Amino acid sequence: MTKTLDPRDDMLGRARVRDNAELEAYYDDLAKQDTGALWTVANDIEPWEPKAKSDPIIWRSADLRQQVLRALDLVRPEDAGRRVVYLRNPKRQDVSAACGWLFSGIQVMNPGERAGAHRHAASALRFIMEGKGAYTVVDGHRMELGENDFVITPNGTWHEHGVSEDGETSMWQDGLDIPLTNCLEANFYEVHPDDYQATNLPVDDRQLSWGGAGLRPETDKWDRPFSPLMKFAWEPTYEALRNYAKATDGSPYDGVIMRYVNPQTGDNPMLTMGAHMQMLRPAEHTKAHRHTGNVIYHVAKGEGYSVIGGKRFDWKKNDIFCVPAWTWHEHCNTQQREDSCLFSFNDFPTMEKLGYWREQALEDNDGHQIVEA
Amino acid sequence: MTKTLDPRDDMLGRARVRDNAELEAYYDDLAKQDTGALWTVANDIEPWEPKAKSDPIIWRSADLRQQVLRALDLVRPEDAGRRVVYLRNPKRQDVSAACGWLFSGIQVMNPGERAGAHRHAASALRFIMEGKGAYTVVDGHRMELGENDFVITPNGTWHEHGVSEDGETSMWQDGLDIPLTNCLEANFYEVHPDDYQATNLPVDDRQLSWGGAGLRPETDKWDRPFSPLMKFAWEPTYEALRNYAKATDGSPYDGVIMRYVNPQTGDNPMLTMGAHMQMLRPAEHTKAHRHTGNVIYHVAKGEGYSVIGGKRFDWKKNDIFCVPAWTWHEHCNTQQREDSCLFSFNDFPTMEKLGYWREQALEDNDGHQIVEA
Amino acid sequence: MTKTLDPRDDMLGRARVRDNAELEAYYDDLAKQDTGALWTVANDIEPWEPKAKSDPIIWRSADLRQQVLRALDLVRPEDAGRRVVYLRNPKRQDVSAACGWLFSGIQVMNPGERAGAHRHAASALRFIMEGKGAYTVVDGHRMELGENDFVITPNGTWHEHGVSEDGETSMWQDGLDIPLTNCLEANFYEVHPDDYQATNLPVDDRQLSWGGAGLRPETDKWDRPFSPLMKFAWEPTYEALRNYAKATDGSPYDGVIMRYVNPQTGDNPMLTMGAHMQMLRPAEHTKAHRHTGNVIYHVAKGEGYSVIGGKRFDWKKNDIFCVPAWTWHEHCNTQQREDSCLFSFNDFPTMEKLGYWREQALEDNDGHQIVEA
Amino acid sequence: MTKTLDPRDDMLGRARVRDNAELEAYYDDLAKQDTGALWTVANDIEPWEPKAKSDPIIWRSADLRQQVLRALDLVRPEDAGRRVVYLRNPKRQDVSAACGWLFSGIQVMNPGERAGAHRHAASALRFIMEGKGAYTVVDGHRMELGENDFVITPNGTWHEHGVSEDGETSMWQDGLDIPLTNCLEANFYEVHPDDYQATNLPVDDRQLSWGGAGLRPETDKWDRPFSPLMKFAWEPTYEALRNYAKATDGSPYDGVIMRYVNPQTGDNPMLTMGAHMQMLRPAEHTKAHRHTGNVIYHVAKGEGYSVIGGKRFDWKKNDIFCVPAWTWHEHCNTQQREDSCLFSFNDFPTMEKLGYWREQALEDNDGHQIVEA
Ligand SMILES: [Fe+2]
Ligand SMILES: [Fe+2]
Ligand SMILES: [Fe+2]
Ligand SMILES: [Fe+2]
Ligand SMILES: [Fe+2]
Ligand SMILES: [Fe+2]
Ligand SMILES: [Fe+2]
Ligand SMILES: [Fe+2]
Repeated sequence: MTKTLDPRDDMLGRARVRDNAELEAYYDDLAKQDTGALWTVANDIEPWEPKAKSDPIIWRSADLRQQVLRALDLVRPEDAGRRVVYLRNPKRQDVSAACGWLFSGIQVMNPGERAGAHRHAASALRFIMEGKGAYTVVDGHRMELGENDFVITPNGTWHEHGVSEDGETSMWQDGLDIPLTNCLEANFYEVHPDDYQATNLPVDDRQLSWGGAGLRPETDKWDRPFSPLMKFAWEPTYEALRNYAKATDGSPYDGVIMRYVNPQTGDNPMLTMGAHMQMLRPAEHTKAHRHTGNVIYHVAKGEGYSVIGGKRFDWKKNDIFCVPAWTWHEHCNTQQREDSCLFSFNDFPTMEKLGYWREQALEDNDGHQIVEA
Repeated sequence: MTKTLDPRDDMLGRARVRDNAELEAYYDDLAKQDTGALWTVANDIEPWEPKAKSDPIIWRSADLRQQVLRALDLVRPEDAGRRVVYLRNPKRQDVSAACGWLFSGIQVMNPGERAGAHRHAASALRFIMEGKGAYTVVDGHRMELGENDFVITPNGTWHEHGVSEDGETSMWQDGLDIPLTNCLEANFYEVHPDDYQATNLPVDDRQLSWGGAGLRPETDKWDRPFSPLMKFAWEPTYEALRNYAKATDGSPYDGVIMRYVNPQTGDNPMLTMGAHMQMLRPAEHTKAHRHTGNVIYHVAKGEGYSVIGGKRFDWKKNDIFCVPAWTWHEHCNTQQREDSCLFSFNDFPTMEKLGYWREQALEDNDGHQIVEA
Repeated sequence: MTKTLDPRDDMLGRARVRDNAELEAYYDDLAKQDTGALWTVANDIEPWEPKAKSDPIIWRSADLRQQVLRALDLVRPEDAGRRVVYLRNPKRQDVSAACGWLFSGIQVMNPGERAGAHRHAASALRFIMEGKGAYTVVDGHRMELGENDFVITPNGTWHEHGVSEDGETSMWQDGLDIPLTNCLEANFYEVHPDDYQATNLPVDDRQLSWGGAGLRPETDKWDRPFSPLMKFAWEPTYEALRNYAKATDGSPYDGVIMRYVNPQTGDNPMLTMGAHMQMLRPAEHTKAHRHTGNVIYHVAKGEGYSVIGGKRFDWKKNDIFCVPAWTWHEHCNTQQREDSCLFSFNDFPTMEKLGYWREQALEDNDGHQIVEA
Repeated sequence: MTKTLDPRDDMLGRARVRDNAELEAYYDDLAKQDTGALWTVANDIEPWEPKAKSDPIIWRSADLRQQVLRALDLVRPEDAGRRVVYLRNPKRQDVSAACGWLFSGIQVMNPGERAGAHRHAASALRFIMEGKGAYTVVDGHRMELGENDFVITPNGTWHEHGVSEDGETSMWQDGLDIPLTNCLEANFYEVHPDDYQATNLPVDDRQLSWGGAGLRPETDKWDRPFSPLMKFAWEPTYEALRNYAKATDGSPYDGVIMRYVNPQTGDNPMLTMGAHMQMLRPAEHTKAHRHTGNVIYHVAKGEGYSVIGGKRFDWKKNDIFCVPAWTWHEHCNTQQREDSCLFSFNDFPTMEKLGYWREQALEDNDGHQIVEA
């Protein structure tokens, strides 16, 4: 248990005990009583700053899509629960996470398929990649899913997905906080007693009721801890981004960026995870910053690259990549005439509620990272 | 000071003292010391239920518009402050109110006219009636005003209005809580030091930034106690109403009704006054209810009538009418094929914050009032 | 209707129309249609700053107590509703207010007397002056009342008062927002169906449960919009003040001042009215300030004077005085060795919720008013 | 990767794919692209209910105290950072946690010793066990520490501890969310630039200012996201418990239980961790329940036992034990004439903010667990 001292740790306020035989004996005695000496671990568990648990990774659509389609023939949704290829960060295999405590996967369904209804304490979101006729039903609210739509399935809601008989093979990215929910020993799972939800609400009733900006449907009672708007469709989102671009200089780190929010409260749509859509204007190259929290990006439009932890990741439509906690990152739209759009989801609501949010701008090199050769 | 006792007041818990000579002498002594006996006024100041301070009134556009246009030649905005004909409830002349503690008036401006900037503790709102090229500037945010747009000018914001040189004579309804602000001894007024506000923000920057439902412009910092969206344009509002109509049965008392809200918080756009746009579907006749709070309606579209306190008021486009506190009211769209839309503003936020909101449905006669002959 | 122009009003942004025959005719036409020209009233209803509606007044205990005791023989509580002598500001007789929209009175009861239970939308508070064995029951919670205790009876709660058979004649100050509730057309009144409340809760159960600082009784469910602690007893309040005095320099305007709050939320105990207890240290003379909102003070301990609107008011134990809105005021403890304590209640929560709070320090004359001769 | 199917998992809505050679090949291909098939892990990461990550453990004061005292001679606080023996749950050695994501340890200091000031994103609390003259300084606020006092050191505050020269050897339990902060990749550490904090605030100024129930020090501005009351002393806490016992039947699971709260807001004193003091009345034996969240108990007074996960743990003064997440537990005071008091701290605020709180009463066997032989 003798340790070499990091020079930075040799100061008042840090543990700098030099072990000796007497101490070693003491440590042995402590261990017998389910105890230990704090100073033997203090500098490890109280680091100067966080060290990311995950690697920055890109999952390229070219590869991913092909594997996902293979699954169509290999398993049925009724057997798989959901037919999903999940993204497995090399450093997070033990918790099946794509980045930090976030799970993500690509789900695919054929026309006429339907997966049974269930609910769990983990929260989920979907970002639609391709297809026609896909739908999801959340607590009886049925939503039609179109490309680049963002949909939530909050903690505790019954949900099921399917593709209508006259639809097309459909694919979407799932994002969940399953690893976090497990990590916090709080996951519960239930299968719907009737396998599928019955509903007579109009299709997309949530969007019809809550889809007007600055307008509250006066008689729609809603006391759930998540957004009554559960589908954030692509067209109005992209229009909002283009409008906002006329009124803002944008963020130095993110270009023109909007956060999806609960229109009833202005808060994040769900308790644990947040999501953004951001537009990088033609040729825009943002500056680098880093912050606590983990982010998984999905390229919704255009092409470009991001530099993450000093490494360049080129991306185009439907590529997925992640930015681990407290890791420098910057984005670049390589198109000269078109904007690029990045969808992303994150654990920021968790970080903010617990007081763990922290952010830092890169000051050196005019705010840009040195890219590894 | 001897009073006849209301039979309902002759019970334990009410004041039912019968005055006599000894008491009269006592009352005189009390008066000399700036005091009085509570039981001489108790039943008056603790009524069984509220009695409206205002009359229900309709101001017909046919009459009103003509008088307002006369003012164009009679006064200049630079002299009048604002060229406004205000609505004066017969029972509220002492406080210049249209209903309860709400002020309202019709403002008119010619192309090229411009009224100087000022600010006050009273909050204001506008509902645009006609014209082209009118604008208002609120704390440096310039907004173009179109028919049926709803615009806020909150407590403490610098504001000024005008019509561009190439515009048309423009008219709008003003709504203010001036009587309330005065009643609560809280009104302050300042003229802008430069007479007019300088601004280099894009026109309608607030709507460009906050006009997307369920989307928050991430870098738009806003810590004011009112809505960052300050113009609620008619087209998206009407579209939202038509969408909502597909998903709701509506309110029995108000048809399909949406409340204008602050998209940052979901609360009312300003602290003291709220506003609604409601749609009465073809031939819809709502049931009667009453509630605390005062409401001023403006017919945005269609025609019909309302029964208020047992009296029928027929209305059409741009008519204005009021519903005083705790007065029964119901609405009817007399068109068989078209919807009618009512804009309204009210003091509900004040009532709710102070715990004074109360509502009651009419139960007799299938929920409809007996209309006075 | 021709008006002389205040020189300050002869500027852009104010109404400065000079009336003429044509305008007078116009005004007559407007009046016929329940309308008026705003510029004829604009400067009146949009004043540069508030002008208090009330006079500063002191009600001296020496006078007041005697008159109140006379009432014991003149009326029975069962007939009077409550046996109260109310404080009537000379300028607020029309609304039976002591100051602004606040009502106040002195209530007296003999041992064995009991007034029937009722409830109303107006909120009430009590400050106990003298006696033994008095109690109040609020929604079934019985509280024993001791000298200088502060007790709340919020909007909508059943309440009744009495003095036990073995008690002494008891007297307390009532404070209510009745004038405000009436002004906002929101007062409702109900007599208890059983005349008196039945209860088997322990006496003072609210204080037993919520009387520990920084401690929440985990199983006491409380979802009412007012404080679960409904009696704020004198001893712990005075102890808290003395402790706080050791840790603070105090407010320049108020000495050592604490606000009574709802321990569940930290907010004011009731929605419309707030209350303070403040200690003026030996010989302390505060500086003058003014603010929106009305305050009624009750001398809980000691003696001194206050200067209000340039006028000096000497006070001692159980004197009551008021500070009208936007009126300069400062306080002085004339005792050289003892502290003085002032209880006060106010309408600040109303002013704050509606965005009407404003405060100003007197800068001239080292912060002290020139006292009128 | 072939798995045996839990019979409960063989239903629609669960993963029940039977692996075959083709699938195995597919899995290999997926692994090469940092992906996997969800159905191979789905039932593991979506369990029917949580399974605790920690063992229930008791650390007995008799053993613990002796080891802690040994450290006095073995290390100096200036070298150890803090001289702490930490509690190491056998199942949580990898994260140095006592239970769940909670760290705990016993700190000991001799008279005249002083540990340097530092701050970190992890939050800390102390529960004082013995000694005299110990103090802690948090952001310049110095607090004297007495037996059974509860003290907070929130996220981001500078803090240091010591024992005055004329004091006695002092010992307290530390509780921190270090494992959680690390788990969420959010820990930061800084040593104070001057090694120790300078302060001229009165000792215990926070308690002097905020120690009155239902009273807010009006001029104490406080905008930090934690409690301005940072020491919750034993005497008023115990008095509050005894008072509350007169007004409540208590919780069936916890007896008379109070939560430590921020008196400014009524919320938990810190963002991530909460704390309780509870009284088990003479001979009281509570019923069993279980809930999400982890709890570490410290016996403040008396003796008895708890049954945790079917196992009996006898305890007396200063013993420490933990209840892991979703584990049945019940408490028993074995004294017939005296109450027992348990202090505890937990991660409930984290669970509640993230929507993960869930609770269940044991229904079988009249609410009591069968104790393992
Ligand atoms: Fe699911
Ligand atoms: Fe970022
Ligand atoms: Fe104005
Ligand atoms: Fe209504
Ligand atoms: Fe009353
Ligand atoms: Fe004051
Ligand atoms: Fe620390
Ligand atoms: Fe428990």
